[in-house]
Amino acid sequence: MGAEGGGGEEATGFEVGVVVPKLSRAAAAEGAEDCVARLVRELQVAGMLVERVRGVPAEFIKLAAPMGTLGRAAAEMQMKKLTYIGMELQFEWDQVAAFVRQPDGSLFSWRERYYCFRYLIYGIVNKTNSEITLKFDDKEFHWKQNESLLTRLEAEGVVKLVFPLHDEIKRKQLLRNWALNWLDFTWQPIDEIYSYFGTKIATYFAFLGMYTRWLFFPAVFGLTTQLIDFGSLQWLVLPSFFIFVISWAVFFLQFWKRKNSALLARWGINCSLSEYKNLDNELGSFGDSLGIEEKMFDDVSAEKRKLQRNEWFGVLLRIRNNAIIVLAIICLQLPFELAYAHLYEITETEVMRYLLTAVYLVAIQYYTRVGGKVSVNLIKYENNRGEESSSASLVYKVFGLYFMQSYIGLFYHASLYRDILALRQVLIQRLIVSQVLENLVENSIPYLKYSYKKYIAVHKKKHEKESPVGKSVRLSTRVEKEYLKPSYTASIGAELEDGLFDDFLELTLQFGMIMMFACAFPLIFCFAALNNVTEIRADALKLLVMLKRPVPRAAATIGAWLNIFQFLVVMAICTNCLLLVCLYDEEGKWRIEPGLAAILIMEHALLLIKFGFSHFVPEEPAWVKANRVRYVAQAQNVCSKQLLRSISKLDQKLD
Amino acid sequence: MGAEGGGGEEATGFEVGVVVPKLSRAAAAEGAEDCVARLVRELQVAGMLVERVRGVPAEFIKLAAPMGTLGRAAAEMQMKKLTYIGMELQFEWDQVAAFVRQPDGSLFSWRERYYCFRYLIYGIVNKTNSEITLKFDDKEFHWKQNESLLTRLEAEGVVKLVFPLHDEIKRKQLLRNWALNWLDFTWQPIDEIYSYFGTKIATYFAFLGMYTRWLFFPAVFGLTTQLIDFGSLQWLVLPSFFIFVISWAVFFLQFWKRKNSALLARWGINCSLSEYKNLDNELGSFGDSLGIEEKMFDDVSAEKRKLQRNEWFGVLLRIRNNAIIVLAIICLQLPFELAYAHLYEITETEVMRYLLTAVYLVAIQYYTRVGGKVSVNLIKYENNRGEESSSASLVYKVFGLYFMQSYIGLFYHASLYRDILALRQVLIQRLIVSQVLENLVENSIPYLKYSYKKYIAVHKKKHEKESPVGKSVRLSTRVEKEYLKPSYTASIGAELEDGLFDDFLELTLQFGMIMMFACAFPLIFCFAALNNVTEIRADALKLLVMLKRPVPRAAATIGAWLNIFQFLVVMAICTNCLLLVCLYDEEGKWRIEPGLAAILIMEHALLLIKFGFSHFVPEEPAWVKANRVRYVAQAQNVCSKQLLRSISKLDQKLD
Repeated sequence: MGAEGGGGEEATGFEVGVVVPKLSRAAAAEGAEDCVARLVRELQVAGMLVERVRGVPAEFIKLAAPMGTLGRAAAEMQMKKLTYIGMELQFEWDQVAAFVRQPDGSLFSWRERYYCFRYLIYGIVNKTNSEITLKFDDKEFHWKQNESLLTRLEAEGVVKLVFPLHDEIKRKQLLRNWALNWLDFTWQPIDEIYSYFGTKIATYFAFLGMYTRWLFFPAVFGLTTQLIDFGSLQWLVLPSFFIFVISWAVFFLQFWKRKNSALLARWGINCSLSEYKNLDNELGSFGDSLGIEEKMFDDVSAEKRKLQRNEWFGVLLRIRNNAIIVLAIICLQLPFELAYAHLYEITETEVMRYLLTAVYLVAIQYYTRVGGKVSVNLIKYENNRGEESSSASLVYKVFGLYFMQSYIGLFYHASLYRDILALRQVLIQRLIVSQVLENLVENSIPYLKYSYKKYIAVHKKKHEKESPVGKSVRLSTRVEKEYLKPSYTASIGAELEDGLFDDFLELTLQFGMIMMFACAFPLIFCFAALNNVTEIRADALKLLVMLKRPVPRAAATIGAWLNIFQFLVVMAICTNCLLLVCLYDEEGKWRIEPGLAAILIMEHALLLIKFGFSHFVPEEPAWVKANRVRYVAQAQNVCSKQLLRSISKLDQKLD
Repeated sequence: MGAEGGGGEEATGFEVGVVVPKLSRAAAAEGAEDCVARLVRELQVAGMLVERVRGVPAEFIKLAAPMGTLGRAAAEMQMKKLTYIGMELQFEWDQVAAFVRQPDGSLFSWRERYYCFRYLIYGIVNKTNSEITLKFDDKEFHWKQNESLLTRLEAEGVVKLVFPLHDEIKRKQLLRNWALNWLDFTWQPIDEIYSYFGTKIATYFAFLGMYTRWLFFPAVFGLTTQLIDFGSLQWLVLPSFFIFVISWAVFFLQFWKRKNSALLARWGINCSLSEYKNLDNELGSFGDSLGIEEKMFDDVSAEKRKLQRNEWFGVLLRIRNNAIIVLAIICLQLPFELAYAHLYEITETEVMRYLLTAVYLVAIQYYTRVGGKVSVNLIKYENNRGEESSSASLVYKVFGLYFMQSYIGLFYHASLYRDILALRQVLIQRLIVSQVLENLVENSIPYLKYSYKKYIAVHKKKHEKESPVGKSVRLSTRVEKEYLKPSYTASIGAELEDGLFDDFLELTLQFGMIMMFACAFPLIFCFAALNNVTEIRADALKLLVMLKRPVPRAAATIGAWLNIFQFLVVMAICTNCLLLVCLYDEEGKWRIEPGLAAILIMEHALLLIKFGFSHFVPEEPAWVKANRVRYVAQAQNVCSKQLLRSISKLDQKLD
């Protein structure tokens, strides 16, 4: 066990901030206890260390907590934590030796700490027998019995935000070792990223790093095909490049799964990959039904029927929603994209083309936003339990939109006009423009937002009290700067996903582009590799410098995105075959008779059914899973304490 | 909890038999204690109920045991058993309430009982400080200190066999409800089959029943296509039948996985499907390395390196072995099969054809046997841990042989000669001849074997002592009849697999035939459905009447066979496309240019790589799995008792 965690009573840094409005100096001087002071006092009573900071735009309450406080909170909220017997049990402070430590020796991960903080903050309730009257500036309001103080204050507009704070020492260290470390191309301090940002972000960067590292192989091959003339074997180059690239992608994805397992093992998440995927929603979804249905526990078959009905209803709903999305994409987006591609092709003057593109870009933005909103609304009606979580469902739907949008024009060029040169040009444009621009936008928009907010805050301040100190109104404390920074949210479906959604989307679109058009332009892998080396730094900078510290999330695999990567590999096989036909059959001599074409299409459609179907019907019926999970959950709840005592004794024996 | 299991002290039936030679009546009368009497005494001391039966060919010791004896044996052999907290723990007799009961209320499953019996029987050792001299007839031999009596007696040839006995009451019941119950076409008493034969055989019959039930749908469709003339839409019939059949197969396999999960849940095997698959070999393979490597427990990275080296070595070995098998099939079997098909086609007289077929059948028998032996030998050198067990490896290799043998001639007819009528004829021949004949052979060979052995035994007996009782030497007891029955073993690789191997092989070959040539002859599904209805009864009769009771095995999924079924579905998509081309393109007008053909072949090869590759590289690295399994195993071993005590208390609370 780490030396640091041994004592158990050292405190965390100031990791959570609460934003409250500034009192006018007059009110502050008045001396009467206002609600903010009350809040601070209650927070101190709850065992936290509190620091008040007066900033320009507002006042900030920075919170830290000793390990003991966090541990008691974890025990109270019945947090499940992995023990040394490989089973998740409810946390108990006095049986602390039974629980697996973090790789850096601390007891709680960042995610666990954050949830403890939230529990502590929102757990401050009025325990007296009467309402308490609180006042703020001139307003007065009542804090009811057993009501959470924070919820009340949020409702009254006193507390503006509760957000995680950056840890300056670790942030600087990461900035030095990671974001600004250009010497190691793809190496990243994954463990430090994990302990600072949590599993989900660390997994993203591990994936990005591995992907970039592996990209160098096809990049070198692609460069070779461009530089060296193979003479009479030249016709063999593209097919062999095609085969190499597909095998490369298959290997890469399989080895990523292995790497992900290794990461889970290193971070003490003691489940295999497939188990972990379903863990969260399992417990979540059956947890609800547990309470309600416990009374009819005996009536097993009725419950089984009910669960089966729910399951099939959910499947049908999901099929319906997907059908809506697919129809919308095919009937609305496809004609639009084809119209644009066609118009672009027949427009003669450059000016008109630029105009057309501008119109197209605006329309596309609008269309995507509407599509995203529709998807989010559809998902709300799905009862996503079992097979896929609602965020995975969103990923598939939004990716469908973007897939059509990004590639249909390219297909158009490739297949209808057989115009490989134009295709290459468009590819380069898209890759460079979209990727470079996106990187710029990605990093500049947060900065602009921050600057704007800062300006507003400073300006307002100046305006307010006509500067007794002259022009020197500046943001002086770190916490207020962080407060003004934008948070890490997804551009679509912010309720369901954080900013990783956008980053992954960018990555998959890139992967799709380089894979599906590999034969048309082998050099594209070089661009992608270079782009990704900068992407790592850009994303790291964004997280460390541009944005608030993100709220940690539980996911420890890349989830639905992996399926999308695998889908893109299969698509790449088909599109590259098409490209090869276009490239080698320049005169169109190879004929495909309608009959043959129909049969080929049928074959591919059936292969799609074969490999796509298992996605819709989960292998384990819902009632089986419910029984399994319920019984184990009940049993673990009841005997948790006794088990724990046994395990801590065991831990001493093993050490 | 069942009423039966509550008392805990009722005895099992006579479930295990030990075969020893008969003493001549003279020796028996001599009164001196021989080794058989000693064995019986020791068995009684071990707590078993013993019944001695003198039969015609030998003497039999029938064994039963009270629950208490079995329970103590289970505790001594540290049997892992599922507890109510969903964790497998070492069995303890005094914490019996913590363990999950069988569906019929008994404590141990048949497999667990059988292993307890074996443990008890082979666990009789010489505990005295000196060698004990035992005699049998005129021979004398020494029973060394701490040596197992049974092993000694087997080595001396005194104990001929230890085998599981049929339970007459349950057997009769199953015979009535199952094997001779022709009224319910596909319904079977799966739970009774499970408690009588164990998980593996029950899973086979559950699969066979479900498969047959589902077969009725395409059978009806197939019949319709033959009976009804669709007029101008006739050309649509075959493609739609094709699409229907493929979707049917995909649905069927997915729903089978669900059904399998449900079965596992019903039988109290509390893991999801994927976990269960790897459970056995995980514990087996890492169990060995545990003892050896515990000393270098600290040197984690060295151990990780070693495990990684082992893993990759195993993968390479498996690739090499598979390459050998594939090459052997392609270079040896393929030309042979094609030669036969070609000769059959050009032979003119019927007599010659029959002669040719006879020669072919003999050669094929020989070839298959050699191939099977080679496969078994190759597998012995693989260290099959992690991904697939050695029996799964055998399944793939042997199926490869049979696949080539069964279908290549059919492909030959279908594609080269475009002779659909001949193909249909061959299909009917193969299906009817092979399936009907096989059913007959399957059931008659055991009976013939049994009759022969019986004749030998009776004849010998008569010969021995010139019948003082006249001609009435007959087998009078059940146990001796059972002894003479053949056991349930595989025709290939009997070391690795039991008789289910042959049954599954038959089933997959049938599935392959009906799926891959669905378009050539839709009626074939009717034949298959009818055949399977009889197959269920034939297999049931074989198990209940013709053979010794099989040794129970652990597997509770159909394992590697499922992958083969899925492979056959993909193959069926391709072959049926080929068939459709042959059927609709009668004049050969649709041309496939070499370039197009090459690209199509490349596409299919790559799709194969894409979906086949993940088979070779497991998602979880060996060292991750080792760490996970080892730590949990250690921890569970140490704290097993304390945990158990907690769980039994919990069980009382929950009830």
